Amino acid sequence: MKVQLYDTTLRDGAQSEGISFSLNDKIRIIKKLDDLGINFIEAGWPGSNPKDIKLFEAVKEIQLKNAHIVAFGSTRHIKNKVSEDPNIKALVETGCDYITIFGKSWDLHVTKALRITLEQNLEIISSSIAYLVSKGKKIIYDAEHFFDAYKTNSEYALKTIKTAQDAGCCSIVLCDTNGGTMPFELEKIIKVVKNSFKTPLGIHSHNDSEMAIANTIAAVRLGCEQVQGTINGYGERCGNANLCSIIPNLKLKLGIDCISNEQLKKLTETSRFVNEVANVSPHIHQPYVGISAFAHKGGIHVDAIKKCGETYEHIIPEIVGNHRRMLVSELAGKTTILEKAAQYNIKLDKDSPEVTNIIKILKRMENEGYQFEGADASFELLIKKNVGLHRSFFDLMGFRIIVERRNDKLISEATVKLMIEGEEEYTVAEGDGPVNALDNALRKALEGFYPIVKGIHLTDYKVRVLDAQEGTAAKVRVLIESSNLQDTWGTVGVSENIIEASYKALVDSIEYVLLKKEQDEHGNI
Amino acid sequence: MKVQLYDTTLRDGAQSEGISFSLNDKIRIIKKLDDLGINFIEAGWPGSNPKDIKLFEAVKEIQLKNAHIVAFGSTRHIKNKVSEDPNIKALVETGCDYITIFGKSWDLHVTKALRITLEQNLEIISSSIAYLVSKGKKIIYDAEHFFDAYKTNSEYALKTIKTAQDAGCCSIVLCDTNGGTMPFELEKIIKVVKNSFKTPLGIHSHNDSEMAIANTIAAVRLGCEQVQGTINGYGERCGNANLCSIIPNLKLKLGIDCISNEQLKKLTETSRFVNEVANVSPHIHQPYVGISAFAHKGGIHVDAIKKCGETYEHIIPEIVGNHRRMLVSELAGKTTILEKAAQYNIKLDKDSPEVTNIIKILKRMENEGYQFEGADASFELLIKKNVGLHRSFFDLMGFRIIVERRNDKLISEATVKLMIEGEEEYTVAEGDGPVNALDNALRKALEGFYPIVKGIHLTDYKVRVLDAQEGTAAKVRVLIESSNLQDTWGTVGVSENIIEASYKALVDSIEYVLLKKEQDEHGNI
Repeated sequence: MKVQLYDTTLRDGAQSEGISFSLNDKIRIIKKLDDLGINFIEAGWPGSNPKDIKLFEAVKEIQLKNAHIVAFGSTRHIKNKVSEDPNIKALVETGCDYITIFGKSWDLHVTKALRITLEQNLEIISSSIAYLVSKGKKIIYDAEHFFDAYKTNSEYALKTIKTAQDAGCCSIVLCDTNGGTMPFELEKIIKVVKNSFKTPLGIHSHNDSEMAIANTIAAVRLGCEQVQGTINGYGERCGNANLCSIIPNLKLKLGIDCISNEQLKKLTETSRFVNEVANVSPHIHQPYVGISAFAHKGGIHVDAIKKCGETYEHIIPEIVGNHRRMLVSELAGKTTILEKAAQYNIKLDKDSPEVTNIIKILKRMENEGYQFEGADASFELLIKKNVGLHRSFFDLMGFRIIVERRNDKLISEATVKLMIEGEEEYTVAEGDGPVNALDNALRKALEGFYPIVKGIHLTDYKVRVLDAQEGTAAKVRVLIESSNLQDTWGTVGVSENIIEASYKALVDSIEYVLLKKEQDEHGNI
Repeated sequence: MKVQLYDTTLRDGAQSEGISFSLNDKIRIIKKLDDLGINFIEAGWPGSNPKDIKLFEAVKEIQLKNAHIVAFGSTRHIKNKVSEDPNIKALVETGCDYITIFGKSWDLHVTKALRITLEQNLEIISSSIAYLVSKGKKIIYDAEHFFDAYKTNSEYALKTIKTAQDAGCCSIVLCDTNGGTMPFELEKIIKVVKNSFKTPLGIHSHNDSEMAIANTIAAVRLGCEQVQGTINGYGERCGNANLCSIIPNLKLKLGIDCISNEQLKKLTETSRFVNEVANVSPHIHQPYVGISAFAHKGGIHVDAIKKCGETYEHIIPEIVGNHRRMLVSELAGKTTILEKAAQYNIKLDKDSPEVTNIIKILKRMENEGYQFEGADASFELLIKKNVGLHRSFFDLMGFRIIVERRNDKLISEATVKLMIEGEEEYTVAEGDGPVNALDNALRKALEGFYPIVKGIHLTDYKVRVLDAQEGTAAKVRVLIESSNLQDTWGTVGVSENIIEASYKALVDSIEYVLLKKEQDEHGNI
């Protein structure tokens, strides 16, 4: 059985609270979806959003390997002749071969939202599809609210899709627009439709009852050939069906070869890329692709996993491009710490006083608000400090940050005084903000002594207010991600003062690189 | 049909990455779960976590209305006599009437993780349950990995739960521990078990395939009487089955009266309370209880919803204690702005130049990184500024922040110079960090002129780095939540400089209160 993957991240996904894509964002995402092996990419709604008209122009320049670009729109407005309806005209003008239009299946919507008669609605569906077909377009018909419609007035609901079929659409997509349908209801309704329609069917579900994935998979098992969804399940309210769960479920659980093994390995990267472009905090527990999806914390689980991955993992994480993580936490025991140390080429004895001491320090720091789950480099330093494999490369004598606004000018200046290899180094630098200024001053002080510092770039900076109820006097945890040409690493700092928390994370980042270089050159000791 | 709700937030939920509860947190959550109408609250694992022993002591002092407190633990260790097994002894010592113990169903786990024979495992299950029953305990038996076990070796899997039944457990809970089972597989297996066992069955599922809710609901429809899950779906890896979706699905979609209507109204509050105590960022798109669960952004949806809620909402939000929100966004049209203005008692004409101008300003600010979805007070000020209903209460002449570390002392000092009602006010204050110092200096300057400022408290402070890829030079969005005795309101500021972004949000918060007071006293104009 072949299933077509239809992505609507750029249209229905953009309805999500907090998401808004620029033209350039959309083009980057289209290329990524094409690489993943998506068959149809719904790029936008030209009749509703003028920015999307430019997008369809720009998309023509892209060479796609797998995907068809689809334009989305509504059936014609009751007041307009179909050939003069601005929304229909905009669809034709995109030049897309495939066009998705949605129409009303639910009598409630026809009479209460559109405020037209049931007959008029059928005519609108029919004339809109027929016109676009006459222009040589292949029409995917989205039957909005189909399941709610069927539950209220099954005869009319079926009549609307019969009208669409007769007008020549190439597929009928049954939509659970409000996301309230249970799988057992949906299955009954799809069986009826499947028995009476020859046109290929599709499924479009929403997650308002946390059933979007179950409904999609149930629909595929009943013969729906097209699956509509979004990357990471973006969408209005509770989101659309999440393609990052649907794709591996289809391929690994149902044995349906919707994308290749190589493409499946890109799933995690695609999910994170789209999060990044959408500027949305990733859902760490997201199935298959979340950074916690294969993270193990309980001592028993960590022990068992080491013996046999299958014991607490339903798939091998690498199949979807993810990987296993052993979390450092008060719930994890010595096993995790030994495991981590081994990764840093440090051999520790389970019963040594060092390990007991590290656990004690870890607990104290976690109580203060530290978390090492996103800060492996800081954790490596912590272990090295406690087994005599660490040295300081500089000592802080003081810093001062000034942020001043006067006469509409805003300046941020940082001064640092460091003791480096016996010399006092006193530098000052400006920046876009206080932390940027501090970063600049630190580098300026260190670069002369340690040229490798020049190659370090901050790639991510995150601030988390820990006890939010305390307002601006709360504790702050700063997570920094740094990169150079070879590597990417995370560090952490905690303080009531955001500047000091940032300083701690910046220092860890630099020390991590300096220590690594020294130990790579001279060996561990 | 009656279904028992079994919450394991405090035990399995605490396995979630980033979650760790203090004793006091756990007690507050237990009370809240009891109010919600949960039947069984699994409070902890006394044999694994010494902190949990204290908890079971403390819990005896609480008067619960609905819930039984349950202690969780494993079957005895192969090396120990059951009466001397520390884990089993700790369970008895909790004094709980109900005890949940988990045992192995999967031959792979028995031989590879426990490294014992299949017969030994059966004996361990039998002796552990029988001993606890002899101590007068009611035993809920968690059959770990039951579905994976059945798929590999159905005969042995069934034998393990037959052993538990014969030893006298009061219910058998089938666990999809790795979360990899599809509903159609799960249904087949439950039917077999249901046909051969008299002991009441329960279901415990995980969300690794995004199927935890579908699997739970399917199990209930096949006769499983106990449902195990966690608030907000907390749990290791991708989390456990989410009770905040299961409960409304059971009650509103399946008509199973598991909690009262009054209790269902507390669902949203309970979800947010537990998020707060766990110090976890809420999942805004969470079904039923998320702040976006009934948030509408698309212009068409906003129009239709105003005519009839049912058009884009699968339930009435207030039933679960949530409410509808109309989002301010470039995708929303004039309708949303008119709707919002009406809430502030401002009548606007759809075709007025003010509305067009507000939309223009809104778009520009959204491009700069502003988002008003969590900052209603800033949005109200924005509208008032553009319809002549705003006045400034003070002008900023300058500020200066100094954060200085020297000789191990860290100070944060803020100076502000304001022009207030024709007078120049120059103040300085310290704080725990730069933003706290700025907040203190601002208040100090304003309190003499506007005593109402004294009553404002910052209750939440959030920082979001907008273009994280730029490192410390990225733009920063600060969201502030403030409260006084009457009200809570949100404001926003954006800048490359975190101090300036904070300043903007602080000023909006204060202006909002001053303007409201003036207009309440003198009317709008």
